[in-house]
Amino acid sequence: MPSTTVGQVIRCKAAVAWEAGKPLVIEEVEVAPPQAMEVRLKILFTSLCHTDVYFWEAKGQTPLFPRIFGHEAGGIVESVGEGVTDLEPGDHVLPVFTGECKECRHCKSEESNMCDLLRINTDRGVMLHDGKSRFSINGQPIYHFVGTSTFSEYTVVHVGCVAKINPAAPLDKVCVLSCGISTGLGATLNVAKPGKGSTVAIFGLGAVGLAAAEGARMAGASRIIGVDLNSKRFNEAKKFGVTEFVNPKDHGKPVQEVIAEMTGGGVDRSVECTGNINAMISAYECVHDGWGVAVLVGVPNKDDTFKTHPMNVLNEKTLKGTFFGNYKPRSDLPLVVEKYMNKELQLEKFITHEVPFSEINKAFDYMLRGDSLRCVIRMDA
Amino acid sequence: MPSTTVGQVIRCKAAVAWEAGKPLVIEEVEVAPPQAMEVRLKILFTSLCHTDVYFWEAKGQTPLFPRIFGHEAGGIVESVGEGVTDLEPGDHVLPVFTGECKECRHCKSEESNMCDLLRINTDRGVMLHDGKSRFSINGQPIYHFVGTSTFSEYTVVHVGCVAKINPAAPLDKVCVLSCGISTGLGATLNVAKPGKGSTVAIFGLGAVGLAAAEGARMAGASRIIGVDLNSKRFNEAKKFGVTEFVNPKDHGKPVQEVIAEMTGGGVDRSVECTGNINAMISAYECVHDGWGVAVLVGVPNKDDTFKTHPMNVLNEKTLKGTFFGNYKPRSDLPLVVEKYMNKELQLEKFITHEVPFSEINKAFDYMLRGDSLRCVIRMDA
Repeated sequence: MPSTTVGQVIRCKAAVAWEAGKPLVIEEVEVAPPQAMEVRLKILFTSLCHTDVYFWEAKGQTPLFPRIFGHEAGGIVESVGEGVTDLEPGDHVLPVFTGECKECRHCKSEESNMCDLLRINTDRGVMLHDGKSRFSINGQPIYHFVGTSTFSEYTVVHVGCVAKINPAAPLDKVCVLSCGISTGLGATLNVAKPGKGSTVAIFGLGAVGLAAAEGARMAGASRIIGVDLNSKRFNEAKKFGVTEFVNPKDHGKPVQEVIAEMTGGGVDRSVECTGNINAMISAYECVHDGWGVAVLVGVPNKDDTFKTHPMNVLNEKTLKGTFFGNYKPRSDLPLVVEKYMNKELQLEKFITHEVPFSEINKAFDYMLRGDSLRCVIRMDA
Repeated sequence: MPSTTVGQVIRCKAAVAWEAGKPLVIEEVEVAPPQAMEVRLKILFTSLCHTDVYFWEAKGQTPLFPRIFGHEAGGIVESVGEGVTDLEPGDHVLPVFTGECKECRHCKSEESNMCDLLRINTDRGVMLHDGKSRFSINGQPIYHFVGTSTFSEYTVVHVGCVAKINPAAPLDKVCVLSCGISTGLGATLNVAKPGKGSTVAIFGLGAVGLAAAEGARMAGASRIIGVDLNSKRFNEAKKFGVTEFVNPKDHGKPVQEVIAEMTGGGVDRSVECTGNINAMISAYECVHDGWGVAVLVGVPNKDDTFKTHPMNVLNEKTLKGTFFGNYKPRSDLPLVVEKYMNKELQLEKFITHEVPFSEINKAFDYMLRGDSLRCVIRMDA
């Protein structure tokens, strides 16, 4: 695209969700230029995450349609809006569904990544700056999704939701670091922090859980116990360092008791990646007293209640939660990309499928059938 | 007492609880010599803690009588049993209700102080070595309490439950570090770890809660919010650094909401020292998302359930518990004594009463009326 697009509306292809649960339709959309503190990105690769599917199905949430989904992606800056100083056209970037304004109490705290200004908001379908969408079809606005909307050849994103990365990094691989893989990886590396030789239980062996296992492997855990209701997942999980497998269905007692017996009292660390409230409670109760730390990652239902006997707390079991693996998007994601570049972190094994943009609905099928970990969508094909 | 007592039975005074809830009786008891890995201590000062009163009342626990209570004390080693190498007669010590064997997984872990061998056991009334009591009256065994039984001029304690301290430290002051004060202090300094300038909420302004406040003051917290159902406690609490007071009874909404409004979203740290399950839940929910840490100290009832919405966890609020302030008795208590010696920690303000041993039942009256923080009992008077 020539530089003459700067300041101009760009016409390009986007996959539009017109209705909840209906196949996306590739349409020609207009993408307005970035406003103050916004950047317009050319998306080269995007991948599908459960969160896209969840809001596309719109069961139980306020439906917001027509909408352009997509939030795991890699791209290149096409142009920047007023006030943007740390990005310029040509930069390689990962857009992120949450942000880092660098000015609020959270961004200034070393302990938090829950930016007050740019924290995920799934109900907002417009840009913060003016409350309007940058997408339209013949004048009809199309809603954004979590500030990213990467199922489009071009998209507009707040500068605080864009991580500038090493231009040598292959975008078709590192695009998966935009959401799920970083979430699981960071839950282990930044929050659970297992020591070398420690024992870690991972609840849920989907992409996020396997990324948590990958983190445990990288940290040098000696036993990584995978817990899943689907025993078929164990084989694949071995590639991610999982050494033992427990299917709660195979046992006549709570899985936390099974794990305590396997480990002489409990694991050193556990990471819960299912969102199921019973798994959350088991993940907490299966850690060892004195030093155990459980980290919850999965998003629960609105009416769930976490219940445990307070003696578990008094016995020095720690309960933590994490959002996006405690990574601050702009500060930390470039360093995660470097972990891939120096071969510490393996990403290829997460990418089980690839489809051209024209066949994006296949990615939904793979995920709904449980066949894929990550399906990368090539925008140029 | 001449050195000829070594290896001999010592006859001395002890306050014996013959029945649940009945005044203690000063009796002449026989104290057998220490066996392998045990030491016999001459107790100079002891103080009364709620846990003594709780098991003396024996409401809801298995009653174990006749018994010699007492577990906060300061004394001097009279003699040592076989295999004891790191203590000798004359050493100044604090006996502790929990221990540190230095060999189990907990003792070897930097994160735990819950020694497998010597962790508190309130149901055991005898010594570990041979399952027998070292106390008797005319041949009738008198039960021990939590391995310390300091309401006696002489007592026998496992070497792993004895902290050797600076002989220059005044035992009539540092004796209170054996239990409650260290529990509250350590909950803040070792577990909550508030930063300089941070905001801390303390639930329960008894001796443990005030020690937690003292820890927050020592850590440089800028706001220390005391929460108690008894508003009279606020005045005394100011001496311990408490800057603001909230009585949940004064508000028509949950105290966690009141605290969130006072602090722009929640405190940085909270420490719960009541044992009330609702206080535990409030203490957790009143911390700020992103970085808040709640620490539970109070011992709950057997049938309590800790309940919270899991989104509180996902929003990066951490829940921790602590036992004896995460101090390892032998390794860490000597250093807490040094904090008093160098005037960093103030202990005098915790000691509101003093009685001679002959009037030990007055200490129970003061505590039951809620008049005292700590009543020190002089054994030689």
